[in-house]
This record gives sequence, C-alpha cells and structure tokens, in this order.
Amino acid sequence: MELLNGQQQEGVFKAIFERRDIRQFNSKPIPKEKLKKILLAGHHAPSVGFMQPWDFIIVESHQIKEKLSEICKKEVEALAIHYEDERKAKFLSLKVEGIKEAPITICVTCDPTRGGGHVLGRNSIPETDILSVACCIQNMWLAAYAEGIAMGWVSFYKKHDVRQILNIPPHVDPVALLSLGFTDNYPDAPILEKVNWEKRLHLSNLIHLDKWDNMSNSL
Amino acid sequence: MELLNGQQQEGVFKAIFERRDIRQFNSKPIPKEKLKKILLAGHHAPSVGFMQPWDFIIVESHQIKEKLSEICKKEVEALAIHYEDERKAKFLSLKVEGIKEAPITICVTCDPTRGGGHVLGRNSIPETDILSVACCIQNMWLAAYAEGIAMGWVSFYKKHDVRQILNIPPHVDPVALLSLGFTDNYPDAPILEKVNWEKRLHLSNLIHLDKWDNMSNSL
Repeated sequence: MELLNGQQQEGVFKAIFERRDIRQFNSKPIPKEKLKKILLAGHHAPSVGFMQPWDFIIVESHQIKEKLSEICKKEVEALAIHYEDERKAKFLSLKVEGIKEAPITICVTCDPTRGGGHVLGRNSIPETDILSVACCIQNMWLAAYAEGIAMGWVSFYKKHDVRQILNIPPHVDPVALLSLGFTDNYPDAPILEKVNWEKRLHLSNLIHLDKWDNMSNSL
Repeated sequence: MELLNGQQQEGVFKAIFERRDIRQFNSKPIPKEKLKKILLAGHHAPSVGFMQPWDFIIVESHQIKEKLSEICKKEVEALAIHYEDERKAKFLSLKVEGIKEAPITICVTCDPTRGGGHVLGRNSIPETDILSVACCIQNMWLAAYAEGIAMGWVSFYKKHDVRQILNIPPHVDPVALLSLGFTDNYPDAPILEKVNWEKRLHLSNLIHLDKWDNMSNSL
C-alpha cells in the first residue's frame, strides 16, 4: 500500500469535508476530460462480487432536461402536502434541483441482473447492488469536487417517470439524477444546515462500543 | 468553491483508483486519531434530507469478533451450495473476510426512523436512507486509504444474526461489517479481478447519451 504524502492526504479530506449538494449552476460547459475523469472515478467504486451494476445516461438535451425537471417539480408539490405552516413555507422556498440550469444531468442506474444469478455476497444481502451504485455516486461527487465541478443529487421523482423519459428498461433502477456544472455559489456548510432545516448530529452520539447499548465515550 | 492544487487532486484520484477490498490484516493496532478521522469522514457523507441515518458499532472484543466471523462462515457455506465444479472450488478458496485478524470491525447501521416521518427527498425514494449509508462507507474507505489503513466490506451474513450478536434494535439495519487494520498484502487490482472471478467492464459500454438506447461514442 503506497502511502499518500501530506498534500495528497489533505486533498482527500478536503474533498470529503467540503463536498456539497449543489442546486445552482452557471452555464459554463463541462470540459470532456473532466467529465471522463468523473465517470472513470464512478466506475472504480467497489461493487458486490465486482458486479459493477451501474450505467450512466448523460443528458444534455434541453428538451429532456425540461421533462426531468417537470416530474421533479410535481414530486416536490406532492411532498409539500405533507408539511405544514412554517415548515411548508420553508420547504417551498428551497431550490431542490438545478436540472435545467446544469449543462449536464447524469442518470445513474442499477441493473440488478448484471453478473448473473449468484453474485458473490449479494445472495446474503440483495440490496448490495444499489449500495454499490451509491458508492459509485460518492466517488463521482468527490472526483467532481477535485475537478472544480459542483454536483447535486436529485431524488425527487417517481422512478416510473424517469424510466419513461429516458427509455430505461423496466428491470433497471434509475437510482439518481446527478446535475453537474460550474457554480458561482458554493456554500460553506450543507444547505439544509444553513437554512436551519436539520442540524448536524454530534458524531460522539453515534459511536457504540462492541454492542449497540454501550455508547463509546473514549473517542 | 476552493480549487485543489495538483497534489491534492492527485490524492483524491489515487484514493479512488487504489482503494481495495482487503481481507488480510496484521495485528498492528489502529491509532485512535486515525480511527477518529475515518469516522468523521463517514459522518460527512451526504444524506437524504440531511437525515444522517448511520451509527457505528466499533467491535474490538475478540469474543464478539469470533461470533461475527462464525455467522459469516455459515453464510459462505450456504452460498457455496449454489456454485458448481470449478466455480465452487474457486469460491471456497477465496478468503472473504478477515474479521478475526483485523484489530477493529465496525458495523455501520441505518436507522430509517431518524429525521422523523417526512424526510426531504426520502418520500419519493425510501431506500435513499441506505444509499446515504453506502456513501458514508465509501467516505470511510477513502479516508482509511488516505491514512494508510486497509478496509474490507463484509456482506456475508444474515442481518438477524448480526442484530442478535450486537444487540441492535429490530428496526435498525446492519448495512455492513467493515474490517479495518494495517496489511502486509495490498493488491494492485481488485482481488476478484486478480483471481479471474470477474473482469472489469469497459466504461464505454456503460455510457448512454440522452436515452438508454443511444450508446455514447463520443466519450
């Protein structure tokens, strides 16, 4: 195992700590080489039994982005019904997606049939296929950050609608819509923390020692 | 958005490309500061609606590690029944976990009730809670790499058994067992690729443009 030097280490932790979920993009296009590096980073994620269940649909068409944005808007309206008063007002004031502005939105999918019937490790926990796709998305996010590209993960949609718009086969799961682009507005903390929607929990309250009921006080 | 310098960028991509799933550890203990950094990295993962659904159970007790290793062994035997001939022999020759050797195994869990009934974005896609936990695990993996620590993700177990051994409440999902430690044996490619279990797919075969049926040839 080759050890990273101090600067390289710093890069990893900067990416991890400064990565943000972005919904505001400017129109500057993403250079092809940067996009390639981000996809390659995703493709080097771990996957259960090395099944690599991901596909990447790169949406650049304005017409298709318009349609995706439309179904997200509907889903936001549907969710708003569940909030009340102040919370509802706050929710409706949030910008939850930037699909139309971002030069590129990537639909990352999961094909549960890839790798055949008995994927090593997936027999015990079937959902490890989508967990692998989530690792792929996190790699893309960190790689994007390293390349100066902002990314936002949109999960406000009905999967059926995304399948229909992008012609995705019924057995393939559209796990996420990722918008990517440059931004003029990069927050120094998660947006939901900044607007007081949720607080960051204290890590020490989440660490247990040997058993669930034994909270660790030594870390 | 602060731009990384060349060395820092290199660190991010080295971590992403050189991260491996490790099952062989030596007995050297993990310094507390390194463990802390790894947990902090996990805690800075993205989560749907900022729900932060993860908990970390740090298992250091030999007796408990022994029990966890035992239930994994059973699950490996159960899966072996589904393979035949050469594939079966190869499968049984693989070392699929290093729980007993590794100084620490962390059970990372997902509490789907955290954040209340209407977590922003989780109403549309409920499994975004475990996807958030997977992002947390990937952060831990990359942070561990940056700190010179090897990690292995074990998914050979019945969740019920892990819940019972670690006293995890029934509604909490034991998403992964992560073994961490130093190793003397760091492979230059994924183990399953090296032993010819699966090949890495060509990225270009996984990239579509605007619609599923339109394979992109321009990247």
